[in-house]
Amino acid sequence: MSRVLTIGSGPAGLEAARCVAELGYDVTLIEQLDRLGGTPEIERYAKLTHHFRDSEEAMREMITAVTSKPNVQVLPNTTVLSASGEAGKFRVAVKNGGAPQEIEAGAIIIATGFQHFDPGRETQYYNYYSLPDVITISDLEGMLKDHAVLRPSTGTPPQKVAFIQCVGSRDRQIGNEYCSKVCCGIASKQAIEIREQLPDSQVFIFYIDMRMYGYWEPQLYWPAQEQHKVTYVKGLVSEILPQGDRILIRGEDTTMGRPMEITLDMVVLSVGMEPSEGTKSMAGVFGVEQNQYGFIATGGASGIDPVATSRPGIFVVGAAAGPSDLDDSFSTAGLAAVRAASVLRNGGK
Amino acid sequence: MSRVLTIGSGPAGLEAARCVAELGYDVTLIEQLDRLGGTPEIERYAKLTHHFRDSEEAMREMITAVTSKPNVQVLPNTTVLSASGEAGKFRVAVKNGGAPQEIEAGAIIIATGFQHFDPGRETQYYNYYSLPDVITISDLEGMLKDHAVLRPSTGTPPQKVAFIQCVGSRDRQIGNEYCSKVCCGIASKQAIEIREQLPDSQVFIFYIDMRMYGYWEPQLYWPAQEQHKVTYVKGLVSEILPQGDRILIRGEDTTMGRPMEITLDMVVLSVGMEPSEGTKSMAGVFGVEQNQYGFIATGGASGIDPVATSRPGIFVVGAAAGPSDLDDSFSTAGLAAVRAASVLRNGGK
Repeated sequence: MSRVLTIGSGPAGLEAARCVAELGYDVTLIEQLDRLGGTPEIERYAKLTHHFRDSEEAMREMITAVTSKPNVQVLPNTTVLSASGEAGKFRVAVKNGGAPQEIEAGAIIIATGFQHFDPGRETQYYNYYSLPDVITISDLEGMLKDHAVLRPSTGTPPQKVAFIQCVGSRDRQIGNEYCSKVCCGIASKQAIEIREQLPDSQVFIFYIDMRMYGYWEPQLYWPAQEQHKVTYVKGLVSEILPQGDRILIRGEDTTMGRPMEITLDMVVLSVGMEPSEGTKSMAGVFGVEQNQYGFIATGGASGIDPVATSRPGIFVVGAAAGPSDLDDSFSTAGLAAVRAASVLRNGGK
Repeated sequence: MSRVLTIGSGPAGLEAARCVAELGYDVTLIEQLDRLGGTPEIERYAKLTHHFRDSEEAMREMITAVTSKPNVQVLPNTTVLSASGEAGKFRVAVKNGGAPQEIEAGAIIIATGFQHFDPGRETQYYNYYSLPDVITISDLEGMLKDHAVLRPSTGTPPQKVAFIQCVGSRDRQIGNEYCSKVCCGIASKQAIEIREQLPDSQVFIFYIDMRMYGYWEPQLYWPAQEQHKVTYVKGLVSEILPQGDRILIRGEDTTMGRPMEITLDMVVLSVGMEPSEGTKSMAGVFGVEQNQYGFIATGGASGIDPVATSRPGIFVVGAAAGPSDLDDSFSTAGLAAVRAASVLRNGGK
C-alpha cells in the first residue's frame, strides 16, 4: 500500500499531507469540518505567532500546497468511524457526508490538535460567562483580524486592557499541570497588536513566568515592552469582579510583594490547550495510548521519538500530542511524514 | 543526483541522516571530529532532558541507526573547504583526514549545532576562571555521569549548590538577547540528579523566569520541588565572590524584594547557547544568511519554514538555527529530510 491517511487539517495536518505527497506517496486527508485550516481558520487568527505573518494568507498558502498536489485526496465533512489492521495495511471506515467509505492506508498520521480550555469549566472565578468584557485570547484574535477591538458591553474601544496568563494551565486543581507553551507568546503578540490598533490604550500582562523561549524573547517580549509599552506584572489574580460598567481585578503583585487592585475596561484570559474532542476520539478509534491529560502519548520504542505513538505505523503531530507552537507543528509533521513513508517502503516492517 | 550531504553528527544531524536514508536516498554524513555524537558525546551528558534516558545509551542507538544503513557513508575527521553549484547539484570540497575529496550532492543539511557561552568572555563577574568551585552545566554533566559530583577545590561532595540561570542569555550587553530555551530544563534535571546522588545536599536555582514549557512543568519542575526539594528563587545574582574556601553570592531576591546573600560550596552557571564555530563557518562556506546572533537564519520563501535557509536546497536543523531542545532537533531533522528528498526528486526545481 502506498497511501498515508492524515486526519485533521490544521497547520500540522496540512504540512504532514504536503510532506508525504512531496515524497511521492498518495495521501488521503480527512477533515471533519466543511473547510480546511483547523483552529487558525475556525478562530479567525489575525497574525501568526511569532512571525506576524497574516494568518489567513499563510493558511491559504498551506492549503493550496496540499490541494494542488495530484496525489492528495481531500475529504472534508468526514469523520472516522473505526479502524482495523496494522502498520502497512490499515483499513479505516469513514463517513463522508452521509456516505460510509473505507480507506486503505499503510500508515496513519493523527493531526487532530487541541481545543482551548473553557474558562467557565470548574473554576468559576474568571466570570467569563457573566461579564461580557471578560474575553479569551481566541475571542480577541477575531477582533484583531477585523481591526475591531471593542468592549462587547459598549461597542467602544477599551482604554485599559489586561491579559491574565495560565488560565487552565499549570493548574493542578483542574488537572492541567502542564504549561500550554504558546500563551505567553500569543498574549505578547496580541498586546502588540492592540497597542498598534489602539495607540491610546494601556495594556497589562499578569503572569507567573514569561515563557518567551528562544527568539520569542527578542522578537516579542522586548519589543512589547520597549517599543509598544506593554506593562508586564508578575502577579497572581484571584478575583475578577464587576465595578460599575468596568471590571475590577484583585490579586497580588508578587514582585512588589503587595496586594494589587486595578480597574479595567477589558480582561483577556490566556486560555491554555487541552486535547480536542477529535484527538480524544481518534486515540480511542486507533487504540493509541493517551497521557494523563488526554493528549496522545509519544515516545515509541526509544522513549524519545516525538511523533511515535504506542502503535507502529500510527504517528501524531502538532498539538494532538500536547502544547505545540507553529514551528513544532511543521517540524513534527515532517518527521511523521518520514516515519510514515518508511512504513510504506518497508511494508510495515 | 540522489545523494544528500549532512554536516554534523549530534542528535539533529544523526536523525537527519537516518531519515534521508530511510527514504531510500544516499547520504554522506561528515563530522569534523573522530567520533560521532556531537555535544552530548563531547560533553559526556549524563541523562537526556526531559526524558531522563541514559545519554550514552540513547546516543549509541542513534549512531547505530545511521551507521547500520548501507546507503549512508560516514566520514569522520572531515572538514568542509568550499562549495559550489545549486539545488539539485552541489559540489562540496572536503578534507578527509589529510586527503581532499569532492562530494556531489543534490541537497545539503547543516547540523553543526551550538557551543556553550564562555562565562569568562566579556563579563568577568562570574569568576568562572578564578574560582574552581564555579562550574558550568557542561562541567556538571560529566560529574553526574561519573557519579562524582565533587567540589573541584577539595574533591569532597558539596553540601550547598546553586544554579545561576541565564548566563550568556537574555543579555543585551553581551549581544545574546535570545533565551537559550533549554537551560531551565537542564538545570532542573541536573538539580534532581544532584539530590538523588547526594541526598544530604541542598540545591538552589536562581532564575528570572522558569521557562518550563509544555510537559517540562509536570515532568521536571514540579517533581524537582515536591519530590526532590530543590529550592527555586526568583532573583538576580550580581556578585560571585570567594569566602574562605567557599563561595558567597550576592544579589536580590526579587519575589521577597530584599537583598540576598548566601554561602555555597559550588555554583553552577547555566550557560546558554551560541552558534558553534562550525555553524558560523558553514554559513560562510555555503553562503547562507545568518541572523544577528550568528545562527543560520530560517524562514525561506514563506517566512515561516523552520528548516529553510536563504538558499534553495540547503537546510538547517537543530541548534545550528538557534536554541533547540532534543524534540526540536529530531523534528526539524525529519522536516529537513523531507525537503531534501523533495529537491532530489525534482532535480532542484
